[in-house]
Amino acid sequence: MVPTPARPMNDTNEALASFYAKVDELEKVFIDRLGDAIKIPSISAYADNRKDVFAKQMSEWVATKLKAVGVDVTLKDLGKQEGTDLDLPPLVLGRYGSDPEKPTVLVYSHYDVQPASIEDGWKHEPFVMTVEEDGKICGRGTSDDKGPLIGWINMIEAFQKVNVDVPANLVFCFEGMEETASFGLRQGLEDEADKYFKDVDVVCITDVVWVSDEQISVPQGLRGIIFYLVTITGAKVDAHSGGFGGQISEPMTDMVNIMSSLVDANGKILVPGIYDNVQAVTKEEYESYQKLNISEDSLYGGTGGRSLHDNQADALVARWKKPSLSLHRIENALPGAGAVTSIPAKLVGKFSIRTVPFMKWEDIDQLVRRHIKDRFESLGSKNDLEIECHPNDWFYEEASHWNYQAAIQATRNVWGVDPALTCEGGSIPIALDFKKTLKKNVLLMPVGRPTDGQHSTNEKLDKSNYINAIKLYGAYLKEVTNFWRQSKQNL
Amino acid sequence: MVPTPARPMNDTNEALASFYAKVDELEKVFIDRLGDAIKIPSISAYADNRKDVFAKQMSEWVATKLKAVGVDVTLKDLGKQEGTDLDLPPLVLGRYGSDPEKPTVLVYSHYDVQPASIEDGWKHEPFVMTVEEDGKICGRGTSDDKGPLIGWINMIEAFQKVNVDVPANLVFCFEGMEETASFGLRQGLEDEADKYFKDVDVVCITDVVWVSDEQISVPQGLRGIIFYLVTITGAKVDAHSGGFGGQISEPMTDMVNIMSSLVDANGKILVPGIYDNVQAVTKEEYESYQKLNISEDSLYGGTGGRSLHDNQADALVARWKKPSLSLHRIENALPGAGAVTSIPAKLVGKFSIRTVPFMKWEDIDQLVRRHIKDRFESLGSKNDLEIECHPNDWFYEEASHWNYQAAIQATRNVWGVDPALTCEGGSIPIALDFKKTLKKNVLLMPVGRPTDGQHSTNEKLDKSNYINAIKLYGAYLKEVTNFWRQSKQNL
Repeated sequence: MVPTPARPMNDTNEALASFYAKVDELEKVFIDRLGDAIKIPSISAYADNRKDVFAKQMSEWVATKLKAVGVDVTLKDLGKQEGTDLDLPPLVLGRYGSDPEKPTVLVYSHYDVQPASIEDGWKHEPFVMTVEEDGKICGRGTSDDKGPLIGWINMIEAFQKVNVDVPANLVFCFEGMEETASFGLRQGLEDEADKYFKDVDVVCITDVVWVSDEQISVPQGLRGIIFYLVTITGAKVDAHSGGFGGQISEPMTDMVNIMSSLVDANGKILVPGIYDNVQAVTKEEYESYQKLNISEDSLYGGTGGRSLHDNQADALVARWKKPSLSLHRIENALPGAGAVTSIPAKLVGKFSIRTVPFMKWEDIDQLVRRHIKDRFESLGSKNDLEIECHPNDWFYEEASHWNYQAAIQATRNVWGVDPALTCEGGSIPIALDFKKTLKKNVLLMPVGRPTDGQHSTNEKLDKSNYINAIKLYGAYLKEVTNFWRQSKQNL
Repeated sequence: MVPTPARPMNDTNEALASFYAKVDELEKVFIDRLGDAIKIPSISAYADNRKDVFAKQMSEWVATKLKAVGVDVTLKDLGKQEGTDLDLPPLVLGRYGSDPEKPTVLVYSHYDVQPASIEDGWKHEPFVMTVEEDGKICGRGTSDDKGPLIGWINMIEAFQKVNVDVPANLVFCFEGMEETASFGLRQGLEDEADKYFKDVDVVCITDVVWVSDEQISVPQGLRGIIFYLVTITGAKVDAHSGGFGGQISEPMTDMVNIMSSLVDANGKILVPGIYDNVQAVTKEEYESYQKLNISEDSLYGGTGGRSLHDNQADALVARWKKPSLSLHRIENALPGAGAVTSIPAKLVGKFSIRTVPFMKWEDIDQLVRRHIKDRFESLGSKNDLEIECHPNDWFYEEASHWNYQAAIQATRNVWGVDPALTCEGGSIPIALDFKKTLKKNVLLMPVGRPTDGQHSTNEKLDKSNYINAIKLYGAYLKEVTNFWRQSKQNL
């Protein structure tokens, strides 16, 4: 088919309406396309899946589909996985459009998936897409993240089929190692920051979900994490507690003492000064949190956890706006499990602090080290202490940025509701990687729902989320271009 | 050979001297006999070794050797190992002599050994006996416990060869599961307490070593152990610390708080009242401990542990005469290791208290439970607490008993020095099993040295210890009979 010149996307909604109608019309094609992708078990965690199925078959599938809608594709080789002889799957880079009158949006998604096996308790074969009567599209990767990825291809196709210009220039960055620590991604970003990604104006990541099944949202903040390893060393080898109990200095005694000095049973961090740079929650934020439509199940994620808070706003403030300190484990640091009644000679205690804007991790680290060292010295112990820290910063974007305003407006257009501006308690390291490397505004635009079972059995994506995501992408690009043009005019 | 009637053992030392001379004369025969036994890899821990090599070959070897010196042997079938389809090796029971004018001594030893393999770093093949130039008899089981076991057979043979009556009646109880929790032994003891062991006057266990290589000793006390499992339960499953940190009650926080309230960095137990029934160390004991000839290496067992005590007597008091509390580990109680940054939902904390005479474990348990519950309640935690306790009592015999006096006198005769009366920090459950089941005085009579490497590589028994043990057994039986007769006359 030789297309007639595409119509530019105007400020009227007529072009968008015809695009929406085409998306609905192509529903079966789009769902079948997702089914094709689900068939490929692109599990990045398994070395056996890496070389053929994954690096070749899945990345080439994505490249082929992108090329079919006219995307200029480059497969960026990321070399070997550090410390192994395993090939890393390539970054699938793509470029669509280079109109200087449009902004350029970098789109990130990933084509690898979590492991899955019918034996784990799936209702259907995980690598065969099954659409249930109520519209649940089931299969590994439907929600995380093949559905959201393929949505971008579908979006281009729908615009083409109604002969409307895709509203913005697109740069794709599709990764194949997201479920396995994103090995190679950071280096790839750094390599291409001034090359392939040079003209990028904003970033859009579609690897997130709504805050709850009932509450459409756009997250603007993520907590950071400072991970600590505290090592306490006593004897050279584990000792028999019969022979040596009471006679030698025991590292576990110091360890539990130090660990118990960090946080109390109400979740209050006991390290002096740690709350000093934590921003107070505004009355508006607190009230908005209270109004969010979040079921108890979504709020507690099915953990059956015992809440420290009496109402939703307090719980969300604790998750999104306050630092927290969790004690994870105390491990024997010498090889081999000693007898159950031994005195462990060397222990590693692991804990982490979730940080929020605008805590500086270097300051927090100083406070934590001083606190632990003071505590240890007060014990008069004969053991040795070491502290190691692995910081990952929090992420925060102001919602007033036009990239966010575009997402909010697009969500309103497609879903008919204002999305809630929320945060996430956990970290998404890639968001910060993009922000730090490209120094552009990074948007996290949700596609699926928190109960999609992304890392669990019976992963699904609701048909409405899959189809509306395609519309959302188109609407978002239209809004992005409008806001970008306005911001240029305002200069 | 039809022997002339054996001479009775008189109070003169002439018969004993001829016995000693015969033991020396038979040295090569006795060492070769030990070599025969070492060849059989009677490893009770390995199911593969159990059925043929072990239950049949080794128990039959022992039975055959016992029969060869005239012992009346019974193999007591102990059935299957609980919860498995594995046959337990039999108890090799033996009876030698039934003279009503003599006391009956029950002798306990075991014919199974620890695992061993040349790959573990042995100088010689572990299941081939090698005698080094300096007289070290090397091989798995030389010291623990085939050497001490065969010594009893050698002793009978030497008496026979000098035509002197073995001074006491003997009942043997040789076990094949000692290195694997003594499965079956306790039931066997209970079965036979009023049957095979009915006429036993005292018990002698030869499965112990001196207090140090330089200090010959007879231990009269062993610490007990009360093992605790403290379970704290929060959520139903492990939670993500990003999503739920600060929002839900975390069991680890409570766990380290409780653990830290039990003992301080100087080893002092913090449970109120726990020292109330601990016997004070007398000036005489303290001074005798200070005089013991114990190298620093023996004292700290090569653990390189950091001592809490400035001198030997304080260290030994801490090991032998004071309770101690060791914190062993904190384990995730839900199956599967969660992510390293997860919030564990259910934890088991394991600790134990080593008890000394005359602490009552029931009282201690009450104190510990009250302390932990009070502490937990003071936290205001939303989690649940459970406490489980597994007590094993301490063991103590007064050295004034004639069984001990016989051992002391015999040691003096054979080694030419007074043995030190010592304790052990650890437990030997079988000692208490014999004491509780048979209600007779139980003697622990050392044969080897602490550096014999009993559960380690390069196990050895010094030739002097092997040969002198045979003499010691004879001298001990002579003394036992003398003291027994005196005690009967005094009635």
